[in-house]
Amino acid sequence: MDATYDAWAGPTVGQVGELAVLEAVTRRLPAGSPLVGPGDDCAVVAAPDGRFVVTTDMMVHGPDFRWAWSSPADVGWKAAATNLSDVAAMGAVPSGLVVALAAPQETPVAVLEAFAEGVRAGVEALAPGCGVVGGDLSTSATFTVTVTAFGDLSGGAAVLRSGASVGDVLAVSGALGPAARGLSRLFRDGVDADGEPSRSAVVASGADTDPDVARQRRPVPPIADGPLAATAGATAMLDLSDGLAIDAGRLARASRVTLELDDDEALDAAALHGGEDHGLLATFPPGAVLPGGFRRVGVVRERGEHDLVRGGSAVPTTGWDPYADWDGASG
Amino acid sequence: MDATYDAWAGPTVGQVGELAVLEAVTRRLPAGSPLVGPGDDCAVVAAPDGRFVVTTDMMVHGPDFRWAWSSPADVGWKAAATNLSDVAAMGAVPSGLVVALAAPQETPVAVLEAFAEGVRAGVEALAPGCGVVGGDLSTSATFTVTVTAFGDLSGGAAVLRSGASVGDVLAVSGALGPAARGLSRLFRDGVDADGEPSRSAVVASGADTDPDVARQRRPVPPIADGPLAATAGATAMLDLSDGLAIDAGRLARASRVTLELDDDEALDAAALHGGEDHGLLATFPPGAVLPGGFRRVGVVRERGEHDLVRGGSAVPTTGWDPYADWDGASG
Repeated sequence: MDATYDAWAGPTVGQVGELAVLEAVTRRLPAGSPLVGPGDDCAVVAAPDGRFVVTTDMMVHGPDFRWAWSSPADVGWKAAATNLSDVAAMGAVPSGLVVALAAPQETPVAVLEAFAEGVRAGVEALAPGCGVVGGDLSTSATFTVTVTAFGDLSGGAAVLRSGASVGDVLAVSGALGPAARGLSRLFRDGVDADGEPSRSAVVASGADTDPDVARQRRPVPPIADGPLAATAGATAMLDLSDGLAIDAGRLARASRVTLELDDDEALDAAALHGGEDHGLLATFPPGAVLPGGFRRVGVVRERGEHDLVRGGSAVPTTGWDPYADWDGASG
Repeated sequence: MDATYDAWAGPTVGQVGELAVLEAVTRRLPAGSPLVGPGDDCAVVAAPDGRFVVTTDMMVHGPDFRWAWSSPADVGWKAAATNLSDVAAMGAVPSGLVVALAAPQETPVAVLEAFAEGVRAGVEALAPGCGVVGGDLSTSATFTVTVTAFGDLSGGAAVLRSGASVGDVLAVSGALGPAARGLSRLFRDGVDADGEPSRSAVVASGADTDPDVARQRRPVPPIADGPLAATAGATAMLDLSDGLAIDAGRLARASRVTLELDDDEALDAAALHGGEDHGLLATFPPGAVLPGGFRRVGVVRERGEHDLVRGGSAVPTTGWDPYADWDGASG
């Protein structure tokens, strides 16, 4: 928490009370066009396809974001973006979000307002027409956001992780690496002399205007490419939340295949092992015209000893474990 | 936290790691019958009606529950029950849940297993056939659960809070008062000499076997009565989360009517002002046969000076505000 953030000032949620906070937050969120919106026991959302896809993701202050490194609006954007990306990865078009938020009582109302404006900016940029149809406000010692997102499959089959076939082309859409490079920069330059996350260190080092840091704070997943991939016949797909290598390993195991990466200089360490870009990894039948921003990165091989190989060598597919790996720093 | 809970022992989530915890939790949750279940980027749920209802609710250690007073299984049951009740209050049949959970790294895995078993017990008792179709596991200094629940309207209109008409009968289904009496008992008998929540005080006082305490820990909302009310022509309905008086005030304001309570001894202070029973409050056209467990408690009048009256006097319709009223105790 740092006074250089304008939002970290003014009346607190504890002073203002739930109804006033709810009103202030709700009118800043994107409304979308649910059949019944916020204010009743439930929202009602159209599911013209007769099915809907659903994903939920919790973002916790400390392991998932730090106020020294992200503004409240950044956190709102990212909470929306990561969930919208999971919807897109099924081949679905986002149809709505619900947002549950718990804030410490001493949090300024302006922080929640900025958070809501970040959600709106993210939804308007990534899934225009989608909106927040409901939510919940609570109080907690730890600032916590849970977004649950829905999507419509428009009559198509859901694209699972398990459908890749030998000979399919492996392709990605979206940037590979900037979010992880941005996080590395924050860990290096965004800390004080004791190694604690520090907003003034971020500003003094110039990291605040680094485009990679911007992508760590506000990922830009290629949401529209999800349904495009489904229409183009994608056989398997998933969201690149943990980096190409880890997520390719998941796809390979689910589909019982081995994935072979091309010998491509663009697939450097940050691209392979950096997470949080929330691009899309998909497989397409041989000869398919890759849609939207998809480009080839490899091919699907028969299941061998390894999940992921390159030039005949295994590529490690392990990574971050929030229970085992988080160090507890929470600035 | 107290050693008298068997679950509070054994290896911790931080020691065991995310994948093992996920596996242990997932296999204890009720599966239901989604089109696509956990393990992909999204679940896929049937919405045969072409719409779905959705509600989300966050439960936070401290303001919403205390380990001294509730077991992990109690918390799982209650997280399911409160959300299922919101679905029922729209007249919908529950079709699925997603559960996001964040636990401190020092939490024993057995606590999360017991939580999952509580979710299963609650769902099996209250909405048999429904299941947990997806979720998220994270780590947090504050134990936090967000449940999002869905339901199907089976071709009927959603029953909103705003549809009550003058002359309609006001009716409730479910118990009124036990959950609040149970909470009062815990605040009185479930604390140590310093006023801190204490598991051993709960046991020593006999509160542990008080049926009202059981209803505070594990509310039993009449889920099936929600769709029954819709079929019987209910004009308005909502979940009794904050007590008859507060929730009647909400229905009255949304419908722009005044509600007049009958002069009925059963409507005592605990019934009027005690929350967390999660019964249903509904209005029915005059002469309608009240379905299921519904019984008359009053009548809908033209909008007057007050939201809720009884014997010509106003009944207060204000109450608990989590931001303004929580005292921060967290035992």
